[in-house]
Amino acid sequence: MKHILLTNDDGIDSAGLFALYKELKKLGEVTVVAPHIERSAVGHAITINDPIRVIEFNRPDKFHGYAISGTPADCVKIAVKKIMPKTPDIVVSGVNHGSNTATNVLYSGTVSAATEGVIMGVPAIASSLTSFDFKSDMSLAAAFTAKVANIVMEKKLPKDTFLNINIPPGTKDTVKGVQITRQGSGRYDEYFEQRVDLSGRAYYWLTGKKMNLDTEDDIDDVVVAKNKISITPIHIDMTNHRMLDELKKWEITL
Amino acid sequence: MKHILLTNDDGIDSAGLFALYKELKKLGEVTVVAPHIERSAVGHAITINDPIRVIEFNRPDKFHGYAISGTPADCVKIAVKKIMPKTPDIVVSGVNHGSNTATNVLYSGTVSAATEGVIMGVPAIASSLTSFDFKSDMSLAAAFTAKVANIVMEKKLPKDTFLNINIPPGTKDTVKGVQITRQGSGRYDEYFEQRVDLSGRAYYWLTGKKMNLDTEDDIDDVVVAKNKISITPIHIDMTNHRMLDELKKWEITL
Repeated sequence: MKHILLTNDDGIDSAGLFALYKELKKLGEVTVVAPHIERSAVGHAITINDPIRVIEFNRPDKFHGYAISGTPADCVKIAVKKIMPKTPDIVVSGVNHGSNTATNVLYSGTVSAATEGVIMGVPAIASSLTSFDFKSDMSLAAAFTAKVANIVMEKKLPKDTFLNINIPPGTKDTVKGVQITRQGSGRYDEYFEQRVDLSGRAYYWLTGKKMNLDTEDDIDDVVVAKNKISITPIHIDMTNHRMLDELKKWEITL
Repeated sequence: MKHILLTNDDGIDSAGLFALYKELKKLGEVTVVAPHIERSAVGHAITINDPIRVIEFNRPDKFHGYAISGTPADCVKIAVKKIMPKTPDIVVSGVNHGSNTATNVLYSGTVSAATEGVIMGVPAIASSLTSFDFKSDMSLAAAFTAKVANIVMEKKLPKDTFLNINIPPGTKDTVKGVQITRQGSGRYDEYFEQRVDLSGRAYYWLTGKKMNLDTEDDIDDVVVAKNKISITPIHIDMTNHRMLDELKKWEITL
């Protein structure tokens, strides 16, 4: 019997998580430990200066799970250390509403839960639907994510690596296959909109538009733009190994 | 005249930031934009669901700067987009109290500010003192960080890469030189301490002890343990390139 930890960053009551729960149930026992509210764009934040609350989530129409007053990384930590009787066979994070490609990998709470799995020595995958439409059908994305979860539990990933999956909305008939990809360099063209509060003081909202800067065939953003599923192996060693020799030549001294 | 953006995650009033400010002033114009309070372990979080406040920080004994109600990554974004008249020549983040080696690179707010610099196309360095003692002398760490900032502004880093510097406490006589390093795999052995609040409900604090799991000579943690300064080139492409061919052989289909 496989033990699966399911989490996300959209919050425990989100449609993507429930769709994935139903598919993962076919593979084994599923423990849901997810943020009690949306925690998008929290990066790999953990909660060290505030207490963490664990709230039981009892929904006969959905599942019994645990809502956490913390980040996705907190959810994985407390699930493994406190909630689950044994270390899970896999951490599955998603299905997120909205793509987590290119530099979004760095900002994403969804991806961060998989990162935390790997740090704790648990195989992990992160899954996102490349649509922000909350009415999007999650069936294909959920079924495909469960399929990959099953493959990862059978085959072994390098222990510092997880899979980051981005799935276009659609059906088996409209989505055009699967491709192994690299993380792109696309980022947001951002600005801060200035507003004035009821006391006359300024405040700012961050907003922006994603720029897809890549053109190569095997980049995550390029692949999903072609209506294909992108799978990128992500590792937690951020060293630029190719730069090491060059940097030694700089001969920096005290 | 060089334009330098200085930030951190310990907050605008911290000793490490002020020590670094004094050294960077010797190199050019320094704009300080930092969190108004400590924002440690926030990872690469950005604030998208709350307004951001910019509070002028006027301290004749220190400097004029800007305190931000956000994360280190927010500080870099709003500094470049809203506060500074032109894009800075470098983002310098630090000096942090406490090391940012191994998996701490993923959790660190200090490192995240440098990550955000690189995403925005600005060269960047992150600097940490490998001591949590708030009475530690920051002079050597600040002077060395400014030295590296100057080198980085002269020489070019790859555009997806910044330098992550960890400096042991001490003086030029006691610190044993500088080494180019790789990010280690050391992580925390963590647990959640359960307490009971005034209403009788449980809450948890995350705590733990760093485990240094590496032994190789060129790993950040190993180098700082030998009382040497560690410099690791970090890039924002998290793809595990070595895994791409293997993953293609898995032949995952829809």
